[in-house]
Amino acid sequence: MAREVGRRRGRKTVSDSKLAQLPWRQVDNPYRALEVLTDDQLEAVCDTAFCILEEVGMDFLHEGALEILRLAGADVESGSERVRFDRGLIKEALASAPESFTLHARNPAHDLLVGGNRINFGTVGSAPNASDLDGGRRPGNHEDYRNFLRLGQALNVVHFFGGYPVEPVDLNPATRHLDCIYDFLTLTDKVYHAYSLGRTRILDALEMTRIGYGLSNEELAAAPRIFSIINTSSPLRLDGPMIEGLIELARRNQAVVITPFTLSGAMSPATIAGALAQQHAEAMAGLAFTQLVQPGAPVVYGGFTSNVDMKSGAPAFGTPEYTRAAFAGGQLARHIKVPYRSSNANAANCVDAQAAYESQMSLWGAVMGHANFVMHGAGWLEGGLCASFEKMILDVEMLQMMAETLAPLDVSQSALGLDAVREVGPGGHFFGAAHTLDRYETAFYGPILSDWRNFETWQEAGALTATQRANRLFKEILADYAAPSLAPERREELDAFVAKREAEGGAGSL
Amino acid sequence: MAREVGRRRGRKTVSDSKLAQLPWRQVDNPYRALEVLTDDQLEAVCDTAFCILEEVGMDFLHEGALEILRLAGADVESGSERVRFDRGLIKEALASAPESFTLHARNPAHDLLVGGNRINFGTVGSAPNASDLDGGRRPGNHEDYRNFLRLGQALNVVHFFGGYPVEPVDLNPATRHLDCIYDFLTLTDKVYHAYSLGRTRILDALEMTRIGYGLSNEELAAAPRIFSIINTSSPLRLDGPMIEGLIELARRNQAVVITPFTLSGAMSPATIAGALAQQHAEAMAGLAFTQLVQPGAPVVYGGFTSNVDMKSGAPAFGTPEYTRAAFAGGQLARHIKVPYRSSNANAANCVDAQAAYESQMSLWGAVMGHANFVMHGAGWLEGGLCASFEKMILDVEMLQMMAETLAPLDVSQSALGLDAVREVGPGGHFFGAAHTLDRYETAFYGPILSDWRNFETWQEAGALTATQRANRLFKEILADYAAPSLAPERREELDAFVAKREAEGGAGSL
Repeated sequence: MAREVGRRRGRKTVSDSKLAQLPWRQVDNPYRALEVLTDDQLEAVCDTAFCILEEVGMDFLHEGALEILRLAGADVESGSERVRFDRGLIKEALASAPESFTLHARNPAHDLLVGGNRINFGTVGSAPNASDLDGGRRPGNHEDYRNFLRLGQALNVVHFFGGYPVEPVDLNPATRHLDCIYDFLTLTDKVYHAYSLGRTRILDALEMTRIGYGLSNEELAAAPRIFSIINTSSPLRLDGPMIEGLIELARRNQAVVITPFTLSGAMSPATIAGALAQQHAEAMAGLAFTQLVQPGAPVVYGGFTSNVDMKSGAPAFGTPEYTRAAFAGGQLARHIKVPYRSSNANAANCVDAQAAYESQMSLWGAVMGHANFVMHGAGWLEGGLCASFEKMILDVEMLQMMAETLAPLDVSQSALGLDAVREVGPGGHFFGAAHTLDRYETAFYGPILSDWRNFETWQEAGALTATQRANRLFKEILADYAAPSLAPERREELDAFVAKREAEGGAGSL
Repeated sequence: MAREVGRRRGRKTVSDSKLAQLPWRQVDNPYRALEVLTDDQLEAVCDTAFCILEEVGMDFLHEGALEILRLAGADVESGSERVRFDRGLIKEALASAPESFTLHARNPAHDLLVGGNRINFGTVGSAPNASDLDGGRRPGNHEDYRNFLRLGQALNVVHFFGGYPVEPVDLNPATRHLDCIYDFLTLTDKVYHAYSLGRTRILDALEMTRIGYGLSNEELAAAPRIFSIINTSSPLRLDGPMIEGLIELARRNQAVVITPFTLSGAMSPATIAGALAQQHAEAMAGLAFTQLVQPGAPVVYGGFTSNVDMKSGAPAFGTPEYTRAAFAGGQLARHIKVPYRSSNANAANCVDAQAAYESQMSLWGAVMGHANFVMHGAGWLEGGLCASFEKMILDVEMLQMMAETLAPLDVSQSALGLDAVREVGPGGHFFGAAHTLDRYETAFYGPILSDWRNFETWQEAGALTATQRANRLFKEILADYAAPSLAPERREELDAFVAKREAEGGAGSL
């Protein structure tokens, strides 16, 4: 019956279909955020965070930053990088941070609202290795890097690039940022990340963004287009190269995501509450500093608290501790009225059931914590040490399912279908009901990876696991990839800029 | 460093450890239930459900049931099994249903509260096939059945048996129920399910429960001990054998779980709203009927709405539609003030990433929908057509993680760890802090299946997937299994009862 319907409408079957993904869409989270902390507990975490900043302080490894902080009234310890903050100063500085902002993509259709109930999904970023079933695990290289960009561009549920999906270690470190930003601008038209590895690289990224978008300097500084993850070197330290990037971006109104790396039991106390207090202290210090550099600069509160395996010291992700910290991080970010960044993390060594369930735990933490910006949404494996092509497909399926779970539910009289129940009645079936036929094409979410055929059919078709199917899929998508357009004069200007900067030696030696 | 701590405390490493599972515990859900339906939408679904019962009606394929309904004032169509219900009658009947009750296990430590914020996890039930990596997929048999019982008994996060985990088709159908209940009573001491396949079988199950628990008839009827899933034959039909079981159980205050099988697009309208309205109509009719049989009898509202794949007609589970229906089901059950049953479902054909992510989507639907009773929690595969030994281990890991995610978060001053941050300070690490060492053993959830070792170590150890590791684990657990005690006189009485009933031919031919 259903098969007849399928034939009649000419719909392709699973086996012969090209990728039937969801269209690009903005995803809003209609559900109430989950509150793991009571009001009193939230207050206790915030108070402890302030005590940390007041009593212990934080190191800012950058002379210019210390000067900015001294001028703002922070207590900079003489002859040291240690800075202590009165909570009044922090609160005052945070007051200028915007609750939401728009990150503009080269293609305006791909602009992102960051804040409110909006949830944006990014690719994996910064993995040193790449893997797929065919080639196994290898150090990141330029072609893998470019293929991840092609996939991220082609996959609609990917809203932005959360860094270099894989680090192309075959490229010269001094000029790697030039090649990589060039690829972002020519292979994709979505929002991308620039690394805060010192002043030179971030200025190059800004200039290339200006050229690629076709802007004047004034236009570039008028709205956020790129973002950078600023990781604190937990506990309680912000390194110089990160600070340099932060300053240059904030001064031009580009987005800064302050993300403490508070791994509980290693870089923060061995309790979720303690790790959260430290996360909040570090995040508030970084966010306040950004506002002191440029009041009103767009910022995001990054939550990345997880725990180590106490047996080995290895980082773990997608754990019950991670998920609750993700819920709590949203409460803390909303408490200071800034957008919230979380992640789709896992610690699996291959694309197996563990990779899926740890990622799901992370994703539900992000969704119920009301994250606005989900880093590492597609492709992250091995606690971030590997970008996997199959994992990217698996994640895209999971992200699409999440987007659909967040979609509005139609409870109109037509959807309620009383007439259909009247028509079919007790003991009948709905396959042929008018109500069903009217909705046949769009009734339900259609997966890209899940295989719902019965066991015998699935077995006859080769008994492929989800990971093996993902392997086929990513290669099909790459084969179909088409680069977005870029005006020839912009490309020429980019080419010239890269050539000039390469001739100058790029960012010099690391 | 961490490794030294591990050695000092003599903790076993992943590779040499026996199962370090969580202890048996009651799990309470501290979070606010997720509301996918607005108040108006909830009202619209309920109103449509009442309209269905008033205008279309439902078939009760049992003369005795029709008589009960006629006497209660329902509109039983002359010469037919069609029953129409005034909404006033439904509401009045539902008023006597308890909001919560206790299901008593043979071992009182395993008693279950059903209702409130409590969430109980059960095993897979009713799969016709079993599978593991060694033996592949095969029709259910008695030894597989007994092994699933042993695993369910040994695994602490499994609170109850949700039916025969696999159907032992090698046992004579006429006496199979005798063998299976005997196994429940001798291999386990947790709550179990009895099938409502006519009056004889359910009376045998009740008598064996009476003997196994060591009760008088009066004691048996004084409190709920067994439960039965009553599936409506959607749309809008309740079959005779189910009704017979329902009547005998309700009359003895045993628990009845009314679960419409409203597969959207097949047995209910091709919209979630329509499927929910029909689910609610069928559930209310079944629940009201149970209360008419025995006011105050313990009942549970079963939500099982999912959708078919419109291309093939195949049932799908753990879909975005399924998850939202699971959220909504909780709202509907709470609206009529009865406990809520959901499931851990998936449609994967093997224990791969799809099995994990679809199960996670189902579990989060159950958890955020505030289910009290999670059927098929451990071991369900292939949309219920297969019970998998490896999936059972995978699910137990996921259930344990969920239980930990629902555990209270310690936000005491001690947990907040300000002293630890003072001690370590900027740039240090917490591995050796007193705060860490004090919490070393119990700081974080310890997985049974997840492997957090680094890639190289994992690879040297054989590069096993989670599914391969689950295969090892279930065999280790079976090797360590010890049966719970049962008084010899009760066992003898059970033996004698089974022998007598077998001699009588059991339940006769099907």
